[in-house]
Amino acid sequence: RLGPITVTYETYGKLSDARDNAVFICHALTGDAHAAGFHDASTKRPGWWEIMIGPGKPIDTDRYFVICANVLGGCRGTTGPSSVNPETGETWGLDFPVVTIGDMVKVHKRLTEHLGIERLLAVVGGSMGGMQVLDWAVRYPQSVAGAIAIATTPRLSAQSIAFDAIGRTAILSDPNFNAGRYAEDGGPAEGLAIARMIGHITYLSEQGMHEKFGRQLRHADRYRYDFSHEFSVETYLNHQGRAFVERFDANSYLYVTKAMDYFDLTAQRGSLADALRDVSARFLLVSFKSDWLFTPAQSRQVVDGLLANQKRVTYCDIDSQYGHDAFLLEPERLGRLIRGHLEGVQHREQTGKSRLGQFVTPFTEESQTRQRHDHDCIASWIEPQTRVLDLGCGDGALLHRLRVSKQVRGLGIERDESAVLDCVDRGITVVHGELEEELAKFPDNVFDVVILSQTLQSLDAPEKVLREMLRVGRECIVSFSNGAYWQRRITLVGGRVAPLGGATSWHAGPLERGLSLKDFLERCADDGLRVDRVAALKAESGRPVRWGANLRAAEAVVRLRSQS
Amino acid sequence: RLGPITVTYETYGKLSDARDNAVFICHALTGDAHAAGFHDASTKRPGWWEIMIGPGKPIDTDRYFVICANVLGGCRGTTGPSSVNPETGETWGLDFPVVTIGDMVKVHKRLTEHLGIERLLAVVGGSMGGMQVLDWAVRYPQSVAGAIAIATTPRLSAQSIAFDAIGRTAILSDPNFNAGRYAEDGGPAEGLAIARMIGHITYLSEQGMHEKFGRQLRHADRYRYDFSHEFSVETYLNHQGRAFVERFDANSYLYVTKAMDYFDLTAQRGSLADALRDVSARFLLVSFKSDWLFTPAQSRQVVDGLLANQKRVTYCDIDSQYGHDAFLLEPERLGRLIRGHLEGVQHREQTGKSRLGQFVTPFTEESQTRQRHDHDCIASWIEPQTRVLDLGCGDGALLHRLRVSKQVRGLGIERDESAVLDCVDRGITVVHGELEEELAKFPDNVFDVVILSQTLQSLDAPEKVLREMLRVGRECIVSFSNGAYWQRRITLVGGRVAPLGGATSWHAGPLERGLSLKDFLERCADDGLRVDRVAALKAESGRPVRWGANLRAAEAVVRLRSQS
Repeated sequence: RLGPITVTYETYGKLSDARDNAVFICHALTGDAHAAGFHDASTKRPGWWEIMIGPGKPIDTDRYFVICANVLGGCRGTTGPSSVNPETGETWGLDFPVVTIGDMVKVHKRLTEHLGIERLLAVVGGSMGGMQVLDWAVRYPQSVAGAIAIATTPRLSAQSIAFDAIGRTAILSDPNFNAGRYAEDGGPAEGLAIARMIGHITYLSEQGMHEKFGRQLRHADRYRYDFSHEFSVETYLNHQGRAFVERFDANSYLYVTKAMDYFDLTAQRGSLADALRDVSARFLLVSFKSDWLFTPAQSRQVVDGLLANQKRVTYCDIDSQYGHDAFLLEPERLGRLIRGHLEGVQHREQTGKSRLGQFVTPFTEESQTRQRHDHDCIASWIEPQTRVLDLGCGDGALLHRLRVSKQVRGLGIERDESAVLDCVDRGITVVHGELEEELAKFPDNVFDVVILSQTLQSLDAPEKVLREMLRVGRECIVSFSNGAYWQRRITLVGGRVAPLGGATSWHAGPLERGLSLKDFLERCADDGLRVDRVAALKAESGRPVRWGANLRAAEAVVRLRSQS
Repeated sequence: RLGPITVTYETYGKLSDARDNAVFICHALTGDAHAAGFHDASTKRPGWWEIMIGPGKPIDTDRYFVICANVLGGCRGTTGPSSVNPETGETWGLDFPVVTIGDMVKVHKRLTEHLGIERLLAVVGGSMGGMQVLDWAVRYPQSVAGAIAIATTPRLSAQSIAFDAIGRTAILSDPNFNAGRYAEDGGPAEGLAIARMIGHITYLSEQGMHEKFGRQLRHADRYRYDFSHEFSVETYLNHQGRAFVERFDANSYLYVTKAMDYFDLTAQRGSLADALRDVSARFLLVSFKSDWLFTPAQSRQVVDGLLANQKRVTYCDIDSQYGHDAFLLEPERLGRLIRGHLEGVQHREQTGKSRLGQFVTPFTEESQTRQRHDHDCIASWIEPQTRVLDLGCGDGALLHRLRVSKQVRGLGIERDESAVLDCVDRGITVVHGELEEELAKFPDNVFDVVILSQTLQSLDAPEKVLREMLRVGRECIVSFSNGAYWQRRITLVGGRVAPLGGATSWHAGPLERGLSLKDFLERCADDGLRVDRVAALKAESGRPVRWGANLRAAEAVVRLRSQS
């Protein structure tokens, strides 16, 4: 038992009368409660997430009441090893109890209760902050409507533990550490600086460091042949180490890294899927491709655990070169994801319904010609309020339409990052990934309808995908351009009619390869797939073709049902 | 000027009367001259490359005279900062001049001269040893017949410099460092141990650490909630750090890491290709997929620089999970590469001819049916002593045959690692890579013939590859299974004859897709590629088909020539 505990926090924006607009920000290893804005006109240092929090910003302080608090064990106001132990009247030092991520979250839960908030609109955080987000959602499922976990992991890898351990060794072996009893201005500066330098490398990507520093020398054209810092990257790291010592306490570094090492969402309940079974928050997970500290694969473990439990989760792996630090450095793409997700959660909290984001398709000649007749057809086949999975959902146009007209509960899978961002803008729940891999992660029969529109041609193993679609869904609907359509065959090969369904190149590329409606139906028959409904659509009007479908239809839509 | 310099070295095996069998081993950062064997019966520690050097081993001491010497600036006998400065009578410490990889090589060159060796059969080394190999080959092109550079780089990345710099900071800031003047038994143990621990993480792969340690605790089932080393990975690293202090000198660590940071083969002459222009050694480059310290991409830069200069180079990227340390831990695959390369270099040195490795294909029913009629045809079209590039060369069977029967100068490109190993066994020069990417790296018109046998069907952009083949070679020969061959068409679709050249699946996979001879010739005509010779071969006999080639030929061989 530890107490009383002091908690230092900042808030931005105004708590609504219903107390339903509070967003709790969880800071990372060396962050603090000062997440946004400036303390006064004379300070030049803005809050650490100034790019994300403020009026009109993604975490919009005109809409939300934003709270950020320093963590237990930290050194920026909340009780930690540099606080005074009331029993002895001296600073705790290493007598402070070792705390966990869970302890940090429990303390912050008490803070939100103190502020009169029963249910948070969202908990948001990156890195160690993301661990707290995961812990919040698992520990207090009823108190968290939305969870946004960025560049985080359900548990540290051996490599990450190793880096932390070396940092702690550097601090513990610094003679000025003095078993944790040092004056405020005289601690283990060398050891702490080394710990910070090691950490800093892990926050950047190899490519990012290469582009920022390369082999540049700081002050000269040629080597100095001595042991001073001469490469720019050395000078930079040295500066980072020195500056860190000014603002962070070595004992806190020990406690907070240890809390990270101990965090293990898997171990708590046997498996990650078990740990996530009771969460009710709507999740957004974001990773960064070049993050090698908390890798995309680690975020994916959480996403997979949520999908296995049929929880709502949107996931995006942002293609950034900033490495782990990208969560502080990608305001645009990360901002769109956070903004879209928060708005969706708020809409759901306030109205009980999903948010329908804007989807304005301006009426232009192009949008006319690109009108999706297959979407018209698919939409007409879908029952209201069904569960729909759209494979290769693109910018979410079809799912959006189905939500508007049929109130479906939809989920999209999309491989293209910018299309994923478009989906989130529009309130579509979407997982960023390859549809073949994603399909495998769903349990059997969790959807009513699985849609594959205009995507069949780009698959390596379409038959396997169709079988998987019929495993996870009751029925599936496939749309494709009819490869036997006479007009397409003429234009494709420059005036020469290609053989029916034949290759038009050495090795017909995915987009050129025609699959005719007839071929498709024959293959279904051969493979024992039960075709239940077929529509052959005309090119201009999108109306059904009444005769000669294989040659006259520009597009085809086919519904299959599982045999059972 | 520094001198006199003491050099500590070991030799294994016997120098031949012609003094032409000497292999020089270059050690890595913390290695030493004790590369193989045991010093006496009481020592339990074998040399650091015992797996590779010895009687019958890849670097076979029954065949070769093997030399390994400690580097300048080291601490295992060769002059370095812990040696006595003759002018002062005290140890050098930080007064020792900063040395470079080039200085180390110059010293070792003097050693080989002292041993009466003018030309080394080979220089071999991994990591920093590989840097020395590169420097040897560039600095003394006439003195090195073979160069084997493993897990190395032409220059350190910013990230690697950063790791080195932190290690040095840990040493320099240890109060026991005392500006480099410390008693032999009382140096900066803490700082040196930290430097070693940081280094050690970079020698292992993330995956390798995960498999070796995971989140295992060393002595308990549950967390201890204190700051002792409790995760196995912590205990291991701590042990590595402590053990290192016993056998290595902190000053040497500073000097040797600095030499690595300074090494930059590119900067010496403007570009890597320029730096490698005058090398004459036959090169073997080996990298390891999971090596994130000196990455495969860095080895590839050297390979590309050599290819740009039309130098002999074999390259293999071994799929190992051991990370950078794999050069000490992959005796089988690395051993085959080294053994094959050394034998090839020795054969060339002794006879002036390329070695023809064993290629015994046992006469079995299977080998009968797999007889390559296209190879017979291709071989009959090749002029003696031409320069031949074989794209997708597999195990090197065709190149081997062409070397035997036509004395060609051959190079293979192959994506499959085990096929690359087979090539090296047989004395075939081969580059491990994707043929599309590799083709782009060759200058124009450097080959007489470029061969693509039975590989066309697996290409994404065959037309582009054909054009590239005609760019790098005077003519190209393509062989493929005739997709229109009547017997194949029947067996492919289970008794049903598929439409001519048509898709046999939703999306015909690369291997199923038939390309008929007729299709191929038509496409060549359409694309303005000049077909110069065509052979249509029967299935059983491999004899030419005289009539109805498109239906009756099982295989086709086509020669194209560039238009100019």
